[in-house]
Amino acid sequence: MMPPAFDRLTDLLKRFPGLGYRSAERLAMHLLVEHRDQLDTLVDRLKTAAEEVSVCPICGNISEGDAPCGICTDPARDESVLCIVEQIPDLIAIERSGAWRGRYHVLGGKLSPIHGVGPNELNFTQLLRRLAEGNISELVLALSNDIEGQATCHYIQEEIIQGRPIRLSRIGFGLPSGGGVTFADSVTLRSALDGRRSYS
Amino acid sequence: MMPPAFDRLTDLLKRFPGLGYRSAERLAMHLLVEHRDQLDTLVDRLKTAAEEVSVCPICGNISEGDAPCGICTDPARDESVLCIVEQIPDLIAIERSGAWRGRYHVLGGKLSPIHGVGPNELNFTQLLRRLAEGNISELVLALSNDIEGQATCHYIQEEIIQGRPIRLSRIGFGLPSGGGVTFADSVTLRSALDGRRSYS
Repeated sequence: MMPPAFDRLTDLLKRFPGLGYRSAERLAMHLLVEHRDQLDTLVDRLKTAAEEVSVCPICGNISEGDAPCGICTDPARDESVLCIVEQIPDLIAIERSGAWRGRYHVLGGKLSPIHGVGPNELNFTQLLRRLAEGNISELVLALSNDIEGQATCHYIQEEIIQGRPIRLSRIGFGLPSGGGVTFADSVTLRSALDGRRSYS
Repeated sequence: MMPPAFDRLTDLLKRFPGLGYRSAERLAMHLLVEHRDQLDTLVDRLKTAAEEVSVCPICGNISEGDAPCGICTDPARDESVLCIVEQIPDLIAIERSGAWRGRYHVLGGKLSPIHGVGPNELNFTQLLRRLAEGNISELVLALSNDIEGQATCHYIQEEIIQGRPIRLSRIGFGLPSGGGVTFADSVTLRSALDGRRSYS
């Protein structure tokens, strides 16, 4: 019933993360009927971003052109400590918190044999290369609080560190800020109790 | 911290309906890092849709080229009854139900003085033109169950019908399919009670 070009657009949009059938249709309508001017702007910005944005060859963050990213080239950031994250949005969330002044390494996921993600699917080769350069004294694992995150931490400890004199730590888990005990799930509460600290 | 082209893309995406800050960032990452091939496909489909999709000059539905839409040109649809909707997605939802075999008229919104939407902002001129042609015997108002929907129905009754021999009805309101009384809000329950029918 709808024009084929409309259906082909919504078919694509609905496969994007965070968009379902109705929201894809709503978005296509917004761009084609209600705010046609924004469609050209979107096409322009997509094309510019495709030309200008790339992946940092050092850490896997997004970057400009073929150059290393702003964090890898920032001399004010401590290059001896790396925060290991699964995905770029994790890095962005940590940057937003302002709580980390070292550098990063983006793995591109976590080990998950059931989803076909083994060590070769993650960015370990480049991590080994960075460790081999010898300037790194600590890795902070900021990976998920689940079985797959745990497996990835274990793999890094056993296969990547391999007796190098590098401190390894994992970010804390527990009750989120503003969260009450009543509303926390069992895994979170177990993490919070396991991670209790002396209160003085 | 992010490349300017990335920020300009997410700034635009997050203003689109159904997308917030995080989901815009997630979508940009999907297109720029994880599935770069889909970015070109998206640009192509947006440009094709912009060229091929237009608004039906008769009813306000989306259409192809400058031609009237598939519903307005379908001889099997009853042209004497019009279903009046606020937006194209309402039309799509009704079409999906298969419950309407007449034609449509898309107003482009509902009267809402507080949001600056008066009669001139809605597609009443074209509705009056269609009524003046004399083939229409009934309008079915499929407008929201709220004050603004009510105001729009009232306006159509008073200012558009103006004594013409046209039946006017409004779709039924009440408990949605599968919905229990416990979970229904007060406005819905009031509509359901007001709209009760003899049970025999």
